[in-house]
Amino acid sequence: MTEIQLTLISDSTGETVNLAAQAAASQFKGCRLEMEIYSFIGRPSDLENLPAEVWEKSDIVVFTLVRNDTRSALLERCKRHGIQAVALLDPLLTVLSGHIGCQPSSRPGEQYIVSADYFSKLSALDFAMQNDDGQSPDRLRNADVVLTGVSRTSKTPTCIYLAYQGIKAANIPLIYKSPAPSSLIEAIEAGRLVIGLTVSATRLVQVRTQRLQSLEREDVETYADRQRIEDEIVEARLLFARYDLPVIDVTRRSIEETAASIRNLIRLKASA
Amino acid sequence: MTEIQLTLISDSTGETVNLAAQAAASQFKGCRLEMEIYSFIGRPSDLENLPAEVWEKSDIVVFTLVRNDTRSALLERCKRHGIQAVALLDPLLTVLSGHIGCQPSSRPGEQYIVSADYFSKLSALDFAMQNDDGQSPDRLRNADVVLTGVSRTSKTPTCIYLAYQGIKAANIPLIYKSPAPSSLIEAIEAGRLVIGLTVSATRLVQVRTQRLQSLEREDVETYADRQRIEDEIVEARLLFARYDLPVIDVTRRSIEETAASIRNLIRLKASA
Repeated sequence: MTEIQLTLISDSTGETVNLAAQAAASQFKGCRLEMEIYSFIGRPSDLENLPAEVWEKSDIVVFTLVRNDTRSALLERCKRHGIQAVALLDPLLTVLSGHIGCQPSSRPGEQYIVSADYFSKLSALDFAMQNDDGQSPDRLRNADVVLTGVSRTSKTPTCIYLAYQGIKAANIPLIYKSPAPSSLIEAIEAGRLVIGLTVSATRLVQVRTQRLQSLEREDVETYADRQRIEDEIVEARLLFARYDLPVIDVTRRSIEETAASIRNLIRLKASA
Repeated sequence: MTEIQLTLISDSTGETVNLAAQAAASQFKGCRLEMEIYSFIGRPSDLENLPAEVWEKSDIVVFTLVRNDTRSALLERCKRHGIQAVALLDPLLTVLSGHIGCQPSSRPGEQYIVSADYFSKLSALDFAMQNDDGQSPDRLRNADVVLTGVSRTSKTPTCIYLAYQGIKAANIPLIYKSPAPSSLIEAIEAGRLVIGLTVSATRLVQVRTQRLQSLEREDVETYADRQRIEDEIVEARLLFARYDLPVIDVTRRSIEETAASIRNLIRLKASA
């Protein structure tokens, strides 16, 4: 199996280059890709702090560096060590530059400058934490979206993930053999966007078993019981159908993918 | 002011293309960039569902599409409407392909395939939720990192953000004029990585005032009081100094940047 050492270098958090490298790497299943990220490499002198193995072992260096002197210094070193370098954002910067008719500002991390946006994210995160597990049903009127489903359908992680994107998401859990929470019915009747999350029984057994193990508890007998879980899922799906809720099956979806589907539903509703 | 309409098209969640576009756009402050993201555009037929305005208004289309037929269909349409198209991942895919000696798999969203990684993220998120605000000090021994600081130094959002990267982060709040929590001292003495978060008084007044407004409360008089906040910050900094803790000033840092700095400190400690 081919082994490739990929070094990711960023003058900011390294998130962009990391996501891009993960996306690209996932297209080559037959080889082992080792990745190492180095963030906050802003000035040419920061390159001196990189461990020697970067220059000895890297096959490819992928970078997002906006300062020209740092870029040149990196490119020069890569060339000297025979390492291929990919400037991830260059094609996009070139096209933008052409349209706008001016050069990029060359200040690293500009997209993270703390702004009004920062407060709206923090406020959405507060909202998600306070409205986790249906804690404050009277505040649901401020929610951009309300998620519902049985335990461990990833309602909480999805709400919090959405909060980082500035979206106020609340969640209301469904309890087996209990009537639908009145807060849920009120949200539906008020015309809120309420989305049902469902999952396959096999997956839910697996997730709940893991959950019990991580809590070092084995006392909750029915929580991960297959038959009981199947009944719970059916009951939830009947509720979703009765109120004609949009449903997302999270079985083969990561949190990121579920969140992206929810953003699509929010946009659809906004434009309806 | 130049106005540019940027359309982002992804066959997966759109996160990669969004982050890259934000990073590139932030380099051009003098112009207004409108961005619209369309995710889960996997097959050529999905292009038909895009609103007509995409073709009428876009100046630039940036895309991450791995299927060749979808790419060709998009490129053809962009050409027909005179829109510049940027294939964000192409340079990286080409270089990887050359090293590995095979073609990409052309299956969208491969990086999000739910795997063991998914469970470790969920488990880290559970950990962060359970160990928020020093709730379970006896479980701190399982933490990869412990954050401490006064109220509203972004401990919670940072812990949860780290959790999405699979890092188990706990946080212990410092209470003004109270002795340092014993759980904190134990964690320090046990050699855990404990990081102090600090912030400027001006910023903290701003954040706490916003917090009180969002809670619709004005009864907590001292919480956002300037003099009291300055005293709180000094007290916390003295504690950090006494135990020689690494300190991160979050004043001008976004959550993403604070998290990246923490990842660097975790790596430094691991290699020490």
